[in-house]
Amino acid sequence: MTVQDILNGNRRAIARFLTQVENNRDSVSRELVELFPYSGNSSIIGITGAPGTGKSSLVTALTKKLRDQHKTVAIVAVDPTSPFSGGAILGDRIRMRELSGDDGVMIRSMATRGSLGGLAWTTQDMVRVLAAAGYDVIIVETVGAGQSEVDIMRIAHTTVVVEAPGLGDGIQAIKAGILEIADILVVNKDDLAGADKTERALKSMLELGHPTKSHQYGDIPIWIPPIVRTSTKNNTGLDTLLEKINGHQQHMNQYELRTALLQEQFTLEFNKRLQVTLFKRLVETVEDDTFAGIIKRITQYEIDPQQAVDELLRAVDFSIHLE
Amino acid sequence: MTVQDILNGNRRAIARFLTQVENNRDSVSRELVELFPYSGNSSIIGITGAPGTGKSSLVTALTKKLRDQHKTVAIVAVDPTSPFSGGAILGDRIRMRELSGDDGVMIRSMATRGSLGGLAWTTQDMVRVLAAAGYDVIIVETVGAGQSEVDIMRIAHTTVVVEAPGLGDGIQAIKAGILEIADILVVNKDDLAGADKTERALKSMLELGHPTKSHQYGDIPIWIPPIVRTSTKNNTGLDTLLEKINGHQQHMNQYELRTALLQEQFTLEFNKRLQVTLFKRLVETVEDDTFAGIIKRITQYEIDPQQAVDELLRAVDFSIHLE
Repeated sequence: MTVQDILNGNRRAIARFLTQVENNRDSVSRELVELFPYSGNSSIIGITGAPGTGKSSLVTALTKKLRDQHKTVAIVAVDPTSPFSGGAILGDRIRMRELSGDDGVMIRSMATRGSLGGLAWTTQDMVRVLAAAGYDVIIVETVGAGQSEVDIMRIAHTTVVVEAPGLGDGIQAIKAGILEIADILVVNKDDLAGADKTERALKSMLELGHPTKSHQYGDIPIWIPPIVRTSTKNNTGLDTLLEKINGHQQHMNQYELRTALLQEQFTLEFNKRLQVTLFKRLVETVEDDTFAGIIKRITQYEIDPQQAVDELLRAVDFSIHLE
Repeated sequence: MTVQDILNGNRRAIARFLTQVENNRDSVSRELVELFPYSGNSSIIGITGAPGTGKSSLVTALTKKLRDQHKTVAIVAVDPTSPFSGGAILGDRIRMRELSGDDGVMIRSMATRGSLGGLAWTTQDMVRVLAAAGYDVIIVETVGAGQSEVDIMRIAHTTVVVEAPGLGDGIQAIKAGILEIADILVVNKDDLAGADKTERALKSMLELGHPTKSHQYGDIPIWIPPIVRTSTKNNTGLDTLLEKINGHQQHMNQYELRTALLQEQFTLEFNKRLQVTLFKRLVETVEDDTFAGIIKRITQYEIDPQQAVDELLRAVDFSIHLE
């Protein structure tokens, strides 16, 4: 039985099931429901940044450190430029190979298949399956810091945003939104010229008091995202990064902020799923012709889209029966 | 009266109204409904690309060319790194100044205020207001090609994706999704080393037959995104770019693809608005305690989020009354 095999950590069963999740979630919704109660025990680390920042090398290096500590690691890569998910250059392929053959590591890439839509949910489901399978740490690698289709904040307990020198015009390359998602900021490729400049840019953003991810909960001190400089080439800064990640997770646990975080994440997910499901139900109820007629009127600029929605919904009654 | 003032192209009325749209759409929904029927006559051009690709200089240069042709131009900038929207460096500010003082140009930037959510709709409403105000061309500048919160495809008739040499690791920096949104590909900063490499990378993506934006409609030939090399520094390639933009718009009109495009865009918008409005209605109907109880059970890993949605909706009846 699949669910039990996954809970037992059977690699082949996990891999096969993840493929099913990717191909058609609906076909495995019963199993996902059964796995959910077991999916709350992993550390979920999001690693995000622009293409070229060296995220994949960093993920590889971190994974090796975690393996040294005898932690099992699953990697979910949704970055089309990542060697894990396919856009590899030779050097990356070689680094990646270091992780293969280790039964304590599971690598799962998302084939984008030319479409980014729907990736967020599939990623979330995959992470949940891997958590139920018992991996200690799950690393989700995404591209795009702050504007990604896969909203890392909805999934990760700790979010690491990776920057690197020499991408575009210095400060301009650092997106305004990153402090809203970063628990930890990394200046990777520390060995390259310009790393100081990148670090200074991040520091001044922090000092300027841009809105950060942390919320104030009672008297609990706010977590200020530390800036860590790393180089996977020179193998520096990685222990510090791991320390800061652990520090953040302890911060979250110590202060029971984790419950608040989970509540926030699950509320977003529940609302989104409720929206989509409600919509599906309505579409099933209303005639196709009705919709086609509405779209035609909008396309002829006769009626505003929101006005069309309001008009349609005036004809719909909700009756709520809750005991 | 505001609506008439906007239709008359009164700059002060337009500016004031756009601020209201940005602050609270609901407060001006009646006016938006009244303006909508007049919003179908502008060319809407989306210009998108990563930070550092020189989008803003390109927008400035294009605008000047359009002004030479006596076309009025409105610019909506939703890129946090754009000088139009605030993240300016000195050179950009100077370029931008060239456009000020010209009554045929309206520049509107979106203050992200630390949050990217909701920007897409505000942008769409703003574009509609500017279209109703009679601007011949509306340029929407966004960051992030393919993964932006502001999905340019939902708004623009012609989408220009800007790349530049030297961003990240060459091919790696070109995101897999861009061909899905590009009608025209630009290699900007053509004067820099590496422009050839960038162009080659784009060419091979096209030749590899990645999925492109164009759909097949009957016997109509598919639009293959042309690659245009530009340099705002040397003032080269801009006429060609404008030619290709006009060529694309003619292609769309000639073959009545525009109706198909509008239908696609409006269907997406209608569906999204329907989802959100339905959700709001349900939330108004169900007790707060019910929702809080559900989220609590999910957070304790007792019940899967989708399962919780299905359970709630089993208690909801739709009655559709349509004549």
